[in-house]
Amino acid sequence: MTAVERGPVVPSSGAFRPVSPEAVRLRDGGFWADRRAVNTSGVLPHAHAWLDRMGWIRNFREPERHVGREFTDSEIYKLLEAYCWDDADHLAEIDELTALVARAQERDGYVGTAHGRPGQPARWSDPHFGHELYCLGHLIQAGVAAARTGRSPALVSVARRAADHVAGADPAICGHPEIETALVELYRVTGEARYLETAAAFVNRRGHRTLPEHEFGWAYFLDDTPVREAHSLRGHAVRALYLAAGAVDVAVETGDTELLAAVVRQFDHTLARRTYLTGGMGSRHQDESFGDDFVLPPDRAYSETCAGVATVMLAHRLLLATGDMRYGDIVERVLYNVVATAIADDGRAFFYAHTLHQRTPTEFVPADRAQLRFGGGPRAPFFEVSCCLPNVARLLASLPGYLVTSTAEGVQLHQYADMDVRAGGLELDVRTRYPDHGDIVITVRRADQGERVLSLRVPGWAEGATLDGRPVEAGTAVRIRRDFAAGDTVVLRLPLTPRWTWPDPRIDAVRGCVAVEAGPLVMCVESLDAQENLDHLMVDTAVAPEATAVKGRFAQSTGARWPYHRTGTDSAIGSPTVVPLVPYHRWARRGPATMRVWLPVLTP
Amino acid sequence: MTAVERGPVVPSSGAFRPVSPEAVRLRDGGFWADRRAVNTSGVLPHAHAWLDRMGWIRNFREPERHVGREFTDSEIYKLLEAYCWDDADHLAEIDELTALVARAQERDGYVGTAHGRPGQPARWSDPHFGHELYCLGHLIQAGVAAARTGRSPALVSVARRAADHVAGADPAICGHPEIETALVELYRVTGEARYLETAAAFVNRRGHRTLPEHEFGWAYFLDDTPVREAHSLRGHAVRALYLAAGAVDVAVETGDTELLAAVVRQFDHTLARRTYLTGGMGSRHQDESFGDDFVLPPDRAYSETCAGVATVMLAHRLLLATGDMRYGDIVERVLYNVVATAIADDGRAFFYAHTLHQRTPTEFVPADRAQLRFGGGPRAPFFEVSCCLPNVARLLASLPGYLVTSTAEGVQLHQYADMDVRAGGLELDVRTRYPDHGDIVITVRRADQGERVLSLRVPGWAEGATLDGRPVEAGTAVRIRRDFAAGDTVVLRLPLTPRWTWPDPRIDAVRGCVAVEAGPLVMCVESLDAQENLDHLMVDTAVAPEATAVKGRFAQSTGARWPYHRTGTDSAIGSPTVVPLVPYHRWARRGPATMRVWLPVLTP
Repeated sequence: MTAVERGPVVPSSGAFRPVSPEAVRLRDGGFWADRRAVNTSGVLPHAHAWLDRMGWIRNFREPERHVGREFTDSEIYKLLEAYCWDDADHLAEIDELTALVARAQERDGYVGTAHGRPGQPARWSDPHFGHELYCLGHLIQAGVAAARTGRSPALVSVARRAADHVAGADPAICGHPEIETALVELYRVTGEARYLETAAAFVNRRGHRTLPEHEFGWAYFLDDTPVREAHSLRGHAVRALYLAAGAVDVAVETGDTELLAAVVRQFDHTLARRTYLTGGMGSRHQDESFGDDFVLPPDRAYSETCAGVATVMLAHRLLLATGDMRYGDIVERVLYNVVATAIADDGRAFFYAHTLHQRTPTEFVPADRAQLRFGGGPRAPFFEVSCCLPNVARLLASLPGYLVTSTAEGVQLHQYADMDVRAGGLELDVRTRYPDHGDIVITVRRADQGERVLSLRVPGWAEGATLDGRPVEAGTAVRIRRDFAAGDTVVLRLPLTPRWTWPDPRIDAVRGCVAVEAGPLVMCVESLDAQENLDHLMVDTAVAPEATAVKGRFAQSTGARWPYHRTGTDSAIGSPTVVPLVPYHRWARRGPATMRVWLPVLTP
Repeated sequence: MTAVERGPVVPSSGAFRPVSPEAVRLRDGGFWADRRAVNTSGVLPHAHAWLDRMGWIRNFREPERHVGREFTDSEIYKLLEAYCWDDADHLAEIDELTALVARAQERDGYVGTAHGRPGQPARWSDPHFGHELYCLGHLIQAGVAAARTGRSPALVSVARRAADHVAGADPAICGHPEIETALVELYRVTGEARYLETAAAFVNRRGHRTLPEHEFGWAYFLDDTPVREAHSLRGHAVRALYLAAGAVDVAVETGDTELLAAVVRQFDHTLARRTYLTGGMGSRHQDESFGDDFVLPPDRAYSETCAGVATVMLAHRLLLATGDMRYGDIVERVLYNVVATAIADDGRAFFYAHTLHQRTPTEFVPADRAQLRFGGGPRAPFFEVSCCLPNVARLLASLPGYLVTSTAEGVQLHQYADMDVRAGGLELDVRTRYPDHGDIVITVRRADQGERVLSLRVPGWAEGATLDGRPVEAGTAVRIRRDFAAGDTVVLRLPLTPRWTWPDPRIDAVRGCVAVEAGPLVMCVESLDAQENLDHLMVDTAVAPEATAVKGRFAQSTGARWPYHRTGTDSAIGSPTVVPLVPYHRWARRGPATMRVWLPVLTP
């Protein structure tokens, strides 16, 4: 296995090739380097301690005394995967956890602490919520990480035996997709065709209502319509995104252009009509699901952290397969507005769901307290359902694999960070304080002989961007073809001037509102900085927003008994005021607060 | 027991006294007479047949083979209550069902087919969702109806034994209020103080977080804050409304002015900030709960039918207690826009939840099909949770008791219908085609000697109302004090001219929208009448709406990849168009359709 095959997603072919995480070195002090450091020192030990405290690790030792939901095994697997990807050495933890998993693995290769023993539900007895293939998928994904990083041959062996069992047992489709991406990656690692065939079978079988009818409906499980025929992502957001990622993986390995085109179509529809300004997906608390087109209420936004991770997984696969650099835009948006928002500064609390409009002050959740209620609410140390924390951990640990790609002709920079890059025949020194400052200064340290192409994503929001002083078009990829020499420099300048952002008029929930964005960052207002109830704030859009504040007025209460009136001008307005803006990813870090992203527009 | 004590709510004291349903005779062909006829001929036999088909009646015969949820018993009790109130003779059904309930009643008076037997959860073991007191409350309420109408001494006896058991067992508060109103009404029927004391104890014990912690939170169960201290109705809507009604009942019987004032305050807050234009309550599907102030999304409106019934119950109690005739406004709004909407024309299908914005066409639900998913969706013959149908049935059956009240000085008309009224020393012939026509012609047939006062509610929406041609103020009660003689006539004219209705700017979900109302009716547009997707319709509010249609234009799709833009004028607009209006209570009766009440305003 060569160095290039060590990343989180390594397709056999595609328009762009992944670059090994080792070829991308994030410099300390940068935005993502800092967060990866917190991941290593805070998130990983915090997650490990909580999985232990909850008894979910002990489940592997004493499955007959299983505690927790059916899918708790998967959190241990995601933690293992994160340990493998992480720069730091976690060999002791990897070995300890792997030994436990191996011990729980049965002779036929099956692993699952919640099924099959006396007093437990039988294997495969609950296709809707048994989560068995979901857990095995995460185990296999951890094995893939172990194989690619060389961190644990034992874990690779456990994963392969589990995959062999799945391929042989050929169970019904799982209510929660995940096995598909995992099996394809294991195929990519091992070359074993049956893993790919099994993944393809799971993708193809889905959508024919073979799952028994359930009150949540077939769409929740993505079993309502075959993948090739669906026009949009729908149903449970994480399930939909994992399935779509798996379908892309299958399509790429089998050369199935129709299947790839179907996912492209669905993702495009989803971005155009079912995605929050933050890049978050999932509009409903009740079933953690997508809403209908343009149903995007900011207050009841679900926008699960896991859905953000899954969006990055899917978008990156589409990027590799199609070479369409615009996919980097949604990756950037999700990274800065969902992933960066999700984790507390010390890594020891996290958001499960991401509201865009907090109406009542966030509570303080004690450090020793698992939240009963997963879903909405403040960052909490842990939740009874805690899929999001190890999911973010594995994404942050493997993040360097998502920033840069290469081709025969050169290198493509999709995400900007202070880093060294060695790919596509170039060694680059990328200097930037992004997203605080918009200059990205790229210096060539070394270059192969002959012409190389350096491609830079110009974000869709970056109107007024320049390359070496010359205007470049937003929403395109700048291709610099040159016989590069050491010392050559290019400067991409992305204007971070704050701007008003207006919603499509068909999005009912934010009609009459604006938001503020600055570069890739969505901005918000927090009650800590306002003198009155943020729900009464109306902003003046006659002038451009400033970097740090918006001007507006607060509506005054009229004391009306009934809130529906014969005339539209019933509310009294207060005097002009100024309310500071903060980046949305910084909200809820200074104490209990209300918050809003979408701000009602002051009508003249 | 005198005739005046035969109604659904008979407090011992209050500003207004209830009038016996027999003293209010609705004439055939009127709006509510028609719906009561459908209730008798359609709803009641339909509900009875489905309760039988589901096995919930058989549960009383064979409780050891109990099927369905913990609260299925309550549907039989509500059906019994409706049978008792109904004008028609249902004695055979009443006797049959009563005999079954009596058979299932245990020696100590407890009745509950889902608890206490071998293999069943123990009595009182699940305070959150056992619903035991909830069921017993409905049984007692049925007993009250039986007592007041004389329909079944046997049922009265069963109810009294059950109440005695509750008073003696004094269990913990029930997760779902209902027992409180029932026990107070039984006190009113029997004079037994211990029933009132038990109800008062249940009300006073609530709000101290004595229920074990639950992931839904204490507010859902109204156990977060004592009734006397809460500032709003909150949590699960039906639970909140039943509890509030019970608190009013307790307050009235114990002379507790602080408790009554607390409920008045909470209901006022709820009307001002947490109620839909239709009068519906409940903004969230996930927990059938109120949202925060001004969180009133029309698409995800829950507005459960049972919450509408409970709102009428509460508002009527407040009306009787306080003499504030404005409570008749919310009763009217709920009757015409929730209750009238709930039931299919033949009485054999019903809405559980009431959306104000149907985005995807309603499905057709086969007549033999119980919906798995209670909550949103089209009118269906039945649901796995079917509390709404027998609840509407009992309200319609007892409706005459909610229209008129009396005092020593005369009679008060709160709701208008074509009817004869005999109360407060007057016999009145009330002629009207309301709500299709706004004239209410009241002719005195007979009057007691001396001055009487005839009070008429002038709805808050009725700007331009006249009495005998003289303007009267909307939102007030007109008092006509006269020595009435047979043949005297007064004409109240309520203008039903359609009007634009604008939402409070703090209701985010409908900002930039208007609705149309005509008299008490909320209007809507249905896709059957429109040429394009209703979600793209924008209406022209420069002129007043017509009775039957709105003028506007449809937004055209721009094909944008991302729905958030730098400028606010991105959508193309089509040519002027006219879209018919229909009363909201008539929607979804002509086949699959999308629908909306709140219509985006065309900005110039």
